[in-house]
Amino acid sequence: MNVSDLRLRLSQAGQEHLLQFWNELEEAQQVELYAELQAMNFEELNIFFRKATEGFNQSSQQEKVDARMEPVPREVLGSATRDQDQLQAWESEGLLHISQNRVAVLLLAGGQGTRLGVTYPKGMYDVGLPSHKTLFQLQAERILKLQQLAEKCHGNRCTIPWYIMTSGRTMQSTEEFFAKHRYFGLKKENVIFFQQGMLPAMSFDGKIILEEKSKVSMAPDGNGGLYRALAAWDIVGDMERRGVVSVHVYCVDNILVRVADPRFIGFCIQQGADCGAKVVEKTNPTEPVGVVCRVDGVYQVVEYSEISLATAQRRGPDGRLLFNAGNIANHFFTVPFLRDIVNVHEPQLQHHVAQKKIPCVDSQGQHVKPDKPNGIKMEKFVFDIFQFAKKFVVYEVLREDEFSPLKNADSQNGKDNPTTARHALMSLHHCWVLNAGGHFIDENGCRLPAIPRTGAHGQPEAVTAGVADNLKDASDDPIQCEVSPLTSYAGEGLESLVAHREFHAPLIIDEHGVHELVKNGL
Amino acid sequence: MNVSDLRLRLSQAGQEHLLQFWNELEEAQQVELYAELQAMNFEELNIFFRKATEGFNQSSQQEKVDARMEPVPREVLGSATRDQDQLQAWESEGLLHISQNRVAVLLLAGGQGTRLGVTYPKGMYDVGLPSHKTLFQLQAERILKLQQLAEKCHGNRCTIPWYIMTSGRTMQSTEEFFAKHRYFGLKKENVIFFQQGMLPAMSFDGKIILEEKSKVSMAPDGNGGLYRALAAWDIVGDMERRGVVSVHVYCVDNILVRVADPRFIGFCIQQGADCGAKVVEKTNPTEPVGVVCRVDGVYQVVEYSEISLATAQRRGPDGRLLFNAGNIANHFFTVPFLRDIVNVHEPQLQHHVAQKKIPCVDSQGQHVKPDKPNGIKMEKFVFDIFQFAKKFVVYEVLREDEFSPLKNADSQNGKDNPTTARHALMSLHHCWVLNAGGHFIDENGCRLPAIPRTGAHGQPEAVTAGVADNLKDASDDPIQCEVSPLTSYAGEGLESLVAHREFHAPLIIDEHGVHELVKNGL
Repeated sequence: MNVSDLRLRLSQAGQEHLLQFWNELEEAQQVELYAELQAMNFEELNIFFRKATEGFNQSSQQEKVDARMEPVPREVLGSATRDQDQLQAWESEGLLHISQNRVAVLLLAGGQGTRLGVTYPKGMYDVGLPSHKTLFQLQAERILKLQQLAEKCHGNRCTIPWYIMTSGRTMQSTEEFFAKHRYFGLKKENVIFFQQGMLPAMSFDGKIILEEKSKVSMAPDGNGGLYRALAAWDIVGDMERRGVVSVHVYCVDNILVRVADPRFIGFCIQQGADCGAKVVEKTNPTEPVGVVCRVDGVYQVVEYSEISLATAQRRGPDGRLLFNAGNIANHFFTVPFLRDIVNVHEPQLQHHVAQKKIPCVDSQGQHVKPDKPNGIKMEKFVFDIFQFAKKFVVYEVLREDEFSPLKNADSQNGKDNPTTARHALMSLHHCWVLNAGGHFIDENGCRLPAIPRTGAHGQPEAVTAGVADNLKDASDDPIQCEVSPLTSYAGEGLESLVAHREFHAPLIIDEHGVHELVKNGL
Repeated sequence: MNVSDLRLRLSQAGQEHLLQFWNELEEAQQVELYAELQAMNFEELNIFFRKATEGFNQSSQQEKVDARMEPVPREVLGSATRDQDQLQAWESEGLLHISQNRVAVLLLAGGQGTRLGVTYPKGMYDVGLPSHKTLFQLQAERILKLQQLAEKCHGNRCTIPWYIMTSGRTMQSTEEFFAKHRYFGLKKENVIFFQQGMLPAMSFDGKIILEEKSKVSMAPDGNGGLYRALAAWDIVGDMERRGVVSVHVYCVDNILVRVADPRFIGFCIQQGADCGAKVVEKTNPTEPVGVVCRVDGVYQVVEYSEISLATAQRRGPDGRLLFNAGNIANHFFTVPFLRDIVNVHEPQLQHHVAQKKIPCVDSQGQHVKPDKPNGIKMEKFVFDIFQFAKKFVVYEVLREDEFSPLKNADSQNGKDNPTTARHALMSLHHCWVLNAGGHFIDENGCRLPAIPRTGAHGQPEAVTAGVADNLKDASDDPIQCEVSPLTSYAGEGLESLVAHREFHAPLIIDEHGVHELVKNGL
């Protein structure tokens, strides 16, 4: 170890404090810290810090942003509800491109399930479906099914390569999980893992923060770290060699995600877009979701925390919120666009500043758990590149069909947790079965209503007052119904299995057929 | 007691089984049962049963109803979001009528908090607001405030009489609660209590069900029992004597209810309506809410359990659900219309049949807790009279502004419970303060974003992955803010109190001014 040389580099970069506890460290710790610091480019970090904090101070005049925001114009918007007549055409277009091996999917899976209360990657989480499939397995099986559908439609066997971005925290466990499950039936060579970078947390005056005397406080560089990682791992090159033209990028945590959604891809291709965002309608002004819009004529996502209430509450003549394109981290990119990003634009992208309470050791070497923000993390967002699109489009879908994110652990009145995710999937699959002509019956053989009772909004109270089964009625459990992605990607192809038939819940439909499970008394 | 005479009446009505345990009863029980049975009109009950079950069997061909449903046409719809330019005019009209003592409110409070898990009337429930006001108090204070606003607008002191329909189960405790709280500042003579009727539960073959050997199984006759009670207590006569022309009828359980909403009343009056319904937009096809629509050209509410999924999913060209007028049990009636109902139409109204599991004693006198429906309750609904309207209108409002019902006890991922009601009110009041120019700051003096983080939908995950404050950030508690109805009815009049000021939550604004409470560590 050439410590004096390292010390020199550090002092030139104003980071010499990183070695202040050097002499207290055991040799193993010294080796570890030396390796960590040797791998860092301090000049670059200082530039990142300077640019990021400059940008942060500029962007903190919110009123300005509000005044510069414009909604997404109708002509660049495709809507699953307002353009129903075109869905079939978009779907065919998408399936055609898939059948020609021109479509890949890219999964953002760098985050750990910290808020979810687990230490392993979120994709490995089992939300408690009857099948106990994990998020990774659901997504893998949707890819398999989509390959079959494209082949069925257009005659040629095809592959949808799956690029999975992990982080230093999730790389190994993710790869092991996929290997253990034999890639859920996908070909190993078509599941490509790569890793996003990490950046040190820094104090407000630009000093790198030590988490321990021998360890720098590191965090992933945001899901926008994708673009740097694409370059570092030559992922775009791999896409080009495979002849991939269109990429669907999405986050791991949405249990309903339509991986490589042919409608979304077909819409974007028919529009000649190089960049597109799938959104859900924001209907409540205070819903904490970023909105896709134009700022100074350039497309971007304005985070809910950056928008004023007055702007969030603005409505158009049709009564809808003016800024209602809720970002769900589902994006379309062409490979040439990603090539430009990697070669030209990524280096210009500033990091965003997130002020955080960062556990650290102080100058006396004491551990400190700050009760107010003491530093920043520097992050890029996946949507930071919208601004570089030559043709940007937006595709609006129904929340109940496509979006139910897993963010938090179960808790009273919680949102976006395992229970809400499980219910969202089973409610959707219940609708699929009904729309395919199936029916559900109760223990007495009576047909259950299509819309199960869940708490009786606006229902006359006296109707249900004081009867023995109220508490049961009031439970918000949907009818238990799960359809394997291997059987149906988005509800199609179920008629032959369920039409004119009556079922008891829990019902599972999978590659082995239609099964009624015995109720477990719950 | 003339038991043989009673026995004769019973046998003529085919209900003689009600006395089958007579000889086993103690004298006190005999007196009780005798009195209960003497008060019943068995011929009438048998007619109710026959008509109700006939209607039930007819109405159970759901396909038919679906085919006959038409949505509410735009020309009879007033919308808080699509007709913003007219809100002011409707409000002035409403306040004018209020100032002329021509408006009354009528509260449906016959239900107990059974599903809520309490045995007292729901209106007495405290959802845990900073002020710990009950639903009754919030409604009373909104009436007081509205009287002041009308006087301020039009110069004359006025009264909004408050008619409160209770049931045998809630009459006494409700009256005592109001007396104990001195009618929350209202004049005693302007709070008029009356009582809806009860009906016995009946077996599928029309036999009245015994809950105990000495007790008939009784239940309130539905919130549509209102109309029979209006006649029995001459409530319409009282309205006429007071010169009341318009009545706002609502359910006790909506914590956001705008009692005697001048906009709603003004809209209905300007439209020349004799009957109107306030609704919220149903945005998810499977939301369990009844929808206002026309069936065979006649307005009614179709319950969610009667509608097929295909119909619930139908959408118009604007992408909205075709049947999206979600009933929230908020209605407008003119007094002449109610007079007609009471004199002419009410007797023709059929009861609805609700098949229930009814605890009872069997022919051997054993207590039975059935595990499948064993009988029916007969109920009328408050919206059954829409069909008689000469001019029916619908007024659509925003859910987040006006509707958050209290139905269930708190439970994991529960809906419509004390926590959701409390959060709905505080979120709304937080918006009021921001819209009046106030700001909230955190413990470090930094301004909080207008949209508080609650679970970060669509938020890039890596942004918040693995940081110490995530769990706190992810809590869905809104900023604690409560505005007394005595200070503001619907957000008006707060500028002078909060504009350009910064506050720490919890914040209470009431008749004594603006107070910041010390955080209780929660």
